[in-house]
Amino acid sequence: MTRIAVCAPATAITREQAEAAQQLVADEFPEHSIFFHEQCFSSAGHFAGPDIERLEALVELANNPAYDAVWFAKGGYGSNRIAEAAVARMNTAARAKTYVGFSDMGYLLAALYRNGIGQPVHGSMPVSARSERGREALRRVLRWFSGDASGLEPSLDGKTPAVAFNLITLAMIANTPLMPDLSGHVVMVEEVSEDMYSVDRLFFHLVNVLPRVAGLRLGSVTDVPENDREFGQDAEQIAKFWCARAGIPYLGRAEVGHTAENRIVPFGLASPPSAG
Amino acid sequence: MTRIAVCAPATAITREQAEAAQQLVADEFPEHSIFFHEQCFSSAGHFAGPDIERLEALVELANNPAYDAVWFAKGGYGSNRIAEAAVARMNTAARAKTYVGFSDMGYLLAALYRNGIGQPVHGSMPVSARSERGREALRRVLRWFSGDASGLEPSLDGKTPAVAFNLITLAMIANTPLMPDLSGHVVMVEEVSEDMYSVDRLFFHLVNVLPRVAGLRLGSVTDVPENDREFGQDAEQIAKFWCARAGIPYLGRAEVGHTAENRIVPFGLASPPSAG
Repeated sequence: MTRIAVCAPATAITREQAEAAQQLVADEFPEHSIFFHEQCFSSAGHFAGPDIERLEALVELANNPAYDAVWFAKGGYGSNRIAEAAVARMNTAARAKTYVGFSDMGYLLAALYRNGIGQPVHGSMPVSARSERGREALRRVLRWFSGDASGLEPSLDGKTPAVAFNLITLAMIANTPLMPDLSGHVVMVEEVSEDMYSVDRLFFHLVNVLPRVAGLRLGSVTDVPENDREFGQDAEQIAKFWCARAGIPYLGRAEVGHTAENRIVPFGLASPPSAG
Repeated sequence: MTRIAVCAPATAITREQAEAAQQLVADEFPEHSIFFHEQCFSSAGHFAGPDIERLEALVELANNPAYDAVWFAKGGYGSNRIAEAAVARMNTAARAKTYVGFSDMGYLLAALYRNGIGQPVHGSMPVSARSERGREALRRVLRWFSGDASGLEPSLDGKTPAVAFNLITLAMIANTPLMPDLSGHVVMVEEVSEDMYSVDRLFFHLVNVLPRVAGLRLGSVTDVPENDREFGQDAEQIAKFWCARAGIPYLGRAEVGHTAENRIVPFGLASPPSAG
C-alpha cells in the first residue's frame, strides 16, 4: 500500500476534484490511502496560496514519514518559485518518497532529481479525476503504486535513464540551480497551448543548452493556437530539424503530454514500488 | 549620410510598408539613402523566405561596402535560425556597419555583439512606417544616423555599457552560442503579448542565468492577454521580486518596447555616427 499525500505547489484544485480523486482511490485502490492538504484549495492571485504557504505545505508532507508519496495536485505555474527552498529543507523521510506530477511540476521533479531526493515521476495528477478519461490516466499512477508497470511510457527500456518534461518548463530550468545533469538520458518533451513558432524557438534554446544526452523523444504537442499563417513545419519536423542541427539523436515519439494518454516516466532508472 | 540597406531575417513586410519607409527617408532625410532587398517580401510558411534565402540576403547586405547600415525590416520570429551562420560569414565590410532592429532581431544583435561585428543597435524598424506614430519612432533612428542623439534611451549615461532585448528573446539566447558576455552591462528588457505568469517565468530563468550585470531595467510590457484570474503582481513587481532574489540591482524603467515610444539603445558604449 502507498500512503499518498497531495499538495499544490503551483495552482489550486477544487474540493470537487479532490473528492473525485478520493472516491477513485476508495473505490478501486483500497490498498492505498490519499490525503489532501488544505493548501490545495488556497488562493493568492495566480497561485494556490502565497509562496510561503505552498512551500510549507510541500515541505511538511515531504518530511512526514507517515506518507510514502507526494502527489502534486495540479500544474499551472508557480512551483519554480519554491523549488530551490523546498529541496534545501527536505529531510531523510523526504529522501525515501516518491513524487508524482508533470507540466509545471517539472521544476520540482528537476530539483528533486538534481539533489537525489526520492523518486521523481512524470505522471498525471489528481486535478484530472472528474472525467473518465482523466481517471484512466490516474489509474496508471495508482496501479504503478501497486507495482503494476503497465502504465509506463512504452519506450522505457530499463537500461537508459530517462526524464520527461514540458518543453517550456525544461527550457526555463536549463542552466538554473534546478537543472539536473541529464547527460546520457533520454529526454522526452511535450507541450500544450504554445504557438508552433514558440515550439521552434524553445527547441532552438533546448538543443543548444542540453548536455550530451542519449536522445530526444517528442511527446504530444496539443492545443496549438490558430495563427494568422501556417508555420510551415509540424512539431515533429521541428524536433527533427533542431536535433539534426545539434547532433542529438531523435528517437521518435513518446506517450507523454497534456492528454489522457499521458504515461508514467520515473526519472532515471526506476522500477515500480513492490506490491505490498 | 548613411547608406541603409534593409533585409528581413525573420518575417516579411509588405511593399506598402517599404514604400512608406522610402517616402519618409526621401521627404525628411534626403541625406540618407535606403534600399530594400527583394527578400523583404519573400514568403515561406512563417518566414520571409526559407532560412537559406534570409541568410544569403543578410550576408550579402552586411558584406557589401556600398552600405553603411543594415536596418532589419521587421521582427516576428526566425532570426535565431540563421544568426550563427550569418556572423560566421561576415567580412571586414560587415565589421564596419551599424545594425538596427529589436524584438526577434535580438538574436542577431546578440550574435553580432558577441563577435564584435559592427555596432548593434536596439531601435524601431521599417515595418512601422505606415502610421504617424510609427514614423516618429523611425525618425529617432534616422536622426541618430544623422548624428542626433535625442532618440537615445534617457538612462544611457555613456559610462556603463548597455543592451536592450525582448525578454523571451534574451531568455532563449542565454547560454547558447549567440550569447554575448553581458557582465557589467545594464540589461533592459521589454515584452509584448505574453501572459503575466509567462513574464514571471522568464524572469525566473533570466535572473538565474545572467552573469554579474550592472543592473536591470524594465521596458514596457504591453498587450498582456486577458487571463481567467489576475496574476497578483504587475510587471514591475515581478522584475523587482526576481532581481531582489538574485541580487541584481533593479534600476527602474526604460523607454524600450513594442510601442511608438521605443528608444534607441546602441549596444555597449556608443556615440551616434558623426553627421557627415
